Amino acid sequence: MRASVLYDQRFEIEDRPRPVPGPGQVLLKTRVCGICGSDLHLFQHAKDIAKTAEEMGAPPTDLSTGIIMGHEYVGEIAEYGPDTKQAFPIGQKVVSVPFLLGADGALIPVGASPHVDGAYAEYFLGAEDLLLPIPDGVPDEAAALVEPLAIGVHAVAKSRVEPGHAAVILGCGPIGLAVAAVLKMKGVETIIASDFSNRRIELVQKMGATHFTKPDGESPYAICLESAPAAPVTIFDCTGAAPVLPQIIMDAPAGAEVIVAGIAPGEQSISPMIAISKELNIQFVIYYQPEEFAEALQAIAEDKLDWKPLVTAKVGLDGIPKAFDALSDPEGHAKILIEPWRDGALEPI
Amino acid sequence: MRASVLYDQRFEIEDRPRPVPGPGQVLLKTRVCGICGSDLHLFQHAKDIAKTAEEMGAPPTDLSTGIIMGHEYVGEIAEYGPDTKQAFPIGQKVVSVPFLLGADGALIPVGASPHVDGAYAEYFLGAEDLLLPIPDGVPDEAAALVEPLAIGVHAVAKSRVEPGHAAVILGCGPIGLAVAAVLKMKGVETIIASDFSNRRIELVQKMGATHFTKPDGESPYAICLESAPAAPVTIFDCTGAAPVLPQIIMDAPAGAEVIVAGIAPGEQSISPMIAISKELNIQFVIYYQPEEFAEALQAIAEDKLDWKPLVTAKVGLDGIPKAFDALSDPEGHAKILIEPWRDGALEPI
Repeated sequence: MRASVLYDQRFEIEDRPRPVPGPGQVLLKTRVCGICGSDLHLFQHAKDIAKTAEEMGAPPTDLSTGIIMGHEYVGEIAEYGPDTKQAFPIGQKVVSVPFLLGADGALIPVGASPHVDGAYAEYFLGAEDLLLPIPDGVPDEAAALVEPLAIGVHAVAKSRVEPGHAAVILGCGPIGLAVAAVLKMKGVETIIASDFSNRRIELVQKMGATHFTKPDGESPYAICLESAPAAPVTIFDCTGAAPVLPQIIMDAPAGAEVIVAGIAPGEQSISPMIAISKELNIQFVIYYQPEEFAEALQAIAEDKLDWKPLVTAKVGLDGIPKAFDALSDPEGHAKILIEPWRDGALEPI
Repeated sequence: MRASVLYDQRFEIEDRPRPVPGPGQVLLKTRVCGICGSDLHLFQHAKDIAKTAEEMGAPPTDLSTGIIMGHEYVGEIAEYGPDTKQAFPIGQKVVSVPFLLGADGALIPVGASPHVDGAYAEYFLGAEDLLLPIPDGVPDEAAALVEPLAIGVHAVAKSRVEPGHAAVILGCGPIGLAVAAVLKMKGVETIIASDFSNRRIELVQKMGATHFTKPDGESPYAICLESAPAAPVTIFDCTGAAPVLPQIIMDAPAGAEVIVAGIAPGEQSISPMIAISKELNIQFVIYYQPEEFAEALQAIAEDKLDWKPLVTAKVGLDGIPKAFDALSDPEGHAKILIEPWRDGALEPI
């Protein structure tokens, strides 16, 4: 099968053997796979990420064999491995939290390391027990957004936000957009979004933000104070930019809660004395729980959010480098979807 | 009246006018006042603290007039100011959250700046509405511990700790000891304490810690895993030492909650990527609420904790420099109480 393999900041198209599902696994044919912000991050920082994992006690990672990324996938069941229940017919369209299951039930991330290949390829493996069937009538483009939306569901669930509170979203890339959509679904009435990009401000408005500013414009906390003077404030750092958390600590109102959902590389220097004087709470978040993933699928299936503005192009495996280039400009695209069976042209939709 | 005034890292005994209570205020005669860890911190870092406050938007602080510290006080009512209810008789022994009230009800810290004098003096001012009468039979030495104990009540209240959880206390100075005492009162069964000092380990054991280690000894998280394998973990950073938070982020188990209760000066460099991968929650804490202060007084009055090991010496105003010296050695004293009417000798008790 054809696969797009990440080496040191470059992609190679390779002919790889079609994966063979083990016990409890299924072979999935890739229908579509979104390009995630964390894929862009891994593209730039694969070595740093491997180094950090090693510092935290993981065995060293050999990056020389390359990484097949891709975890925002929609697949169809092509083949069952041994010891499977086969509850769904061959051809069933599915999404899944992007993990395989270890012998002890441990979750092994798909498409994030050289160990488990993702869906930047014609086929990939899934764990039967984690598959969720996609209800009829849900287009692939919408189903591919379940994973990034689930990040938003999780980030909001880890916060204390309630409808009467005020939320500040810093960074309106895919995570910030998902957070805005989920906050709107939860009935939060004051959602202040900040980004340098006009395009993203336009998108986050469609997703549910009620107020807008730019990082060099009016303070979002001043807007909070005007729009919802007594409301508790939750700040979602969706930037993945290193200087942002120290700045939040400096500027946030007393008692604020900070949800760090963007992955900033390297080290950040913060001032605990200031954080203490304001009794800030900082919650770092990463993956959703399976039930949060299912909640995101349900929201998509029930048409609770307008996903269409989020998908801006499709591309085949050969066009991935072009898509990564395009995504580095925030004024251009939002979500680009890979369809492995397409050619390499970036087709706007 | 006699007062001990802090200038740039030195104390002077001065004859100051006895303060005159304003509307809603009372003149309190100092019975006893504990030396707080934050007093030691202010002694060392007054300039830095003023600078940080200025960076956060406060007006510049003129340190040249000196600071009368002292906020862990027991006073007796000597005189009422105008517009007071006078609910207690003259001579009534009281404690209070260490604040005066601004015109708009704002809390103004006592003994933390040149603006409002504290109880390192024969007399000081209190806000009538914040006074709590000390029940009969409670010795001054015990009542002086209400304030530091309230810090522990608040730190634990801001955490999610429940009896079945595991708690790790890093740093067994006054805050760490208070946290241990409160955790024990709350019925937490696994309390792991870490400190370099044998003396402090001995004290924290008396306060309620169930396991002990040293920063260069067995990992407290390994002890958690052995003693309470499935228990959620809350880590109390009571060290006030700058390198500790980055180390916690590196070593803490996934999903842990970190309560930062010690005030570390300067900046700290942390790795968000590691904090994100473990979904850590960091809650910075400072002051108690008035009801937490009252809860601490009640715990003392009902003899719910053995406070006697905590108080190790008394001293008069002239002996404050000697007491500050002595407190810099963790193997020596725990809490030293100032009685302004005594001589300058450090009297062990």
